[in-house]
Amino acid sequence: MTKKPEVLSKKLGLTFNDPLLFVTALSHRSVGSNNNERLEFLGDSILGFVIAQKLYDAFPDAAEGTLSRLRANLVNESSLAEVARQHNLGDYLRLGSGELKSGGFRRDSILSDALEAIIGALFKDQGISSCQEWIGRVFAEKLQELSADNWQKDPKTQLQELMQAKKMELPDYTLIDMTGLPHEQIFTVKCSISLVSEPCIGTGVSRKKAEQAAAEIMLTKLIKGN
Amino acid sequence: MTKKPEVLSKKLGLTFNDPLLFVTALSHRSVGSNNNERLEFLGDSILGFVIAQKLYDAFPDAAEGTLSRLRANLVNESSLAEVARQHNLGDYLRLGSGELKSGGFRRDSILSDALEAIIGALFKDQGISSCQEWIGRVFAEKLQELSADNWQKDPKTQLQELMQAKKMELPDYTLIDMTGLPHEQIFTVKCSISLVSEPCIGTGVSRKKAEQAAAEIMLTKLIKGN
Repeated sequence: MTKKPEVLSKKLGLTFNDPLLFVTALSHRSVGSNNNERLEFLGDSILGFVIAQKLYDAFPDAAEGTLSRLRANLVNESSLAEVARQHNLGDYLRLGSGELKSGGFRRDSILSDALEAIIGALFKDQGISSCQEWIGRVFAEKLQELSADNWQKDPKTQLQELMQAKKMELPDYTLIDMTGLPHEQIFTVKCSISLVSEPCIGTGVSRKKAEQAAAEIMLTKLIKGN
Repeated sequence: MTKKPEVLSKKLGLTFNDPLLFVTALSHRSVGSNNNERLEFLGDSILGFVIAQKLYDAFPDAAEGTLSRLRANLVNESSLAEVARQHNLGDYLRLGSGELKSGGFRRDSILSDALEAIIGALFKDQGISSCQEWIGRVFAEKLQELSADNWQKDPKTQLQELMQAKKMELPDYTLIDMTGLPHEQIFTVKCSISLVSEPCIGTGVSRKKAEQAAAEIMLTKLIKGN
């Protein structure tokens, strides 16, 4: 049986002025039209903004590519599902009978959507500053880990270390094109790894820069899981 | 010669406490390390959130898929570049000599990035409520058009009308799979259009729902331009 939402909101440290908003946030579309999909749309955008803001402030020297990568690393389906599981969110979800039977309360996508919907509900109930405060609290540990992490390393180094950690072959970089006059050439490099079928293409004003660009695209691809 | 930033900020109805933030927002990466890439990262997320919030409130009956589509329609590289051009933003950009020569101030990507960076700068200078107010003003016309627009139409109808407007062949839907017991079957449909090489796959509990799902994915693909 689905547990009472009040218990969850207490565990999450939230008090809703409108408790029905919170119930909606916990309602999967399989229960009918009053579900959490719209709140999830809203919550997803709030989470993206709040994490962007925190990363911008926490890493004043990080380039845009690094910030994007850090955010993709923090905010993705599996990391959100992990946060949801820490609070046993699955026990409080309202699911249709089909989803219940097939164990939907354990699925990453459903857990991650519900967490985003809770953020959307919190925003409608109490505004953006409550969201900033709560997201800061919920993601505190993950943000802290980042600070001590190897975020400053360049993309090629990061990709290489990732492949080493997975005990896989190192990335392969091949120069596939050079265009332009001698003093303003553009280099195009292909980066291939055995984990991903399609290579990634990077361009730059030097071969090294093109390799870094290709490695960066590959890293983003790996983090986003596509 | 690049025009004075004060003239632009006045035209945009903005007064910066820290004018250097605004100058940074107008600085393309080709000018060096003090460029607008980090502010663009921040501004992009703020714009996504503020538009999500406005759509959520303006269309209380719209499903999540419709809200996503409306946002992708409002906020994309070419629509942002259009807004930038309305204020002659290109005249105020700070570009490196290579970009200047090749006409970077006319490029959609550079204009759109600078507009997002201005939003990021506004946030750092004055906080989120100023951003909400300004974005509301800048996008007022586009948001108004949406209200009167055919957003409520179902995805299949929208896709069909889009193809008719482009004088192209109508979408083709093919049932490619049916699984499950008779009373709980899942239908899989492929939607193909001549404009996009890869077909889109949709699933649903009826053939009609699967077709709508496939049409929706195709529409999103077309709007995002990939």
